[in-house]
Amino acid sequence: MREVLDRVADKWSLLVMALLAAGPRRYSELRRGIDGISQRMLTLTLRNLVRDGLVTRTVTPTTPPRVDYELTEVGHGLGSEVSALVRWAEGHLDYIAAARARYDAEQP
Amino acid sequence: MREVLDRVADKWSLLVMALLAAGPRRYSELRRGIDGISQRMLTLTLRNLVRDGLVTRTVTPTTPPRVDYELTEVGHGLGSEVSALVRWAEGHLDYIAAARARYDAEQP
Repeated sequence: MREVLDRVADKWSLLVMALLAAGPRRYSELRRGIDGISQRMLTLTLRNLVRDGLVTRTVTPTTPPRVDYELTEVGHGLGSEVSALVRWAEGHLDYIAAARARYDAEQP
Repeated sequence: MREVLDRVADKWSLLVMALLAAGPRRYSELRRGIDGISQRMLTLTLRNLVRDGLVTRTVTPTTPPRVDYELTEVGHGLGSEVSALVRWAEGHLDYIAAARARYDAEQP
């Protein structure tokens, strides 16, 4: 169980899946869409998601070749949970920032 | 946003919150309830969750003192999303294991 949570509870996987929940994306679109992710980390994250059967990788033999990533059916199931988590996080940024400020102010 | 996701997308935070979603727990109960978490990691994870305003820490001055952790109202909001994610993971362990086996078998 913890191994699966390692994947599901990985920040970069969550952000990639939240983007793919809105539809297939090309590698370059994912790279632009995720602030702060390195090429190496995006490549590794996508390979793990494909390996887990959560994402498919489709290569169209144009020149240069076009590579599209898409959630599988099971991936879409997780994608909706992930999107809910990401939306929750977006809705509570201020609350958490204020809580942290209060906590830090209380420290000796 | 990524900072909040760091907290929300942290495996240990997810597991602690999933346990607390079922009700307040003592430190020792959390330590026993999460396979593989070290004392140091549980202490750090709980401190971060308290700092984020997601969990409260209540000390009852018995001998020895009793320390209870509980989700805040906002924490319960996140807790339900987290529990859904953990249930999803539990329901797809076999699927992911099979996908990994297929992927690994296809590698040159």
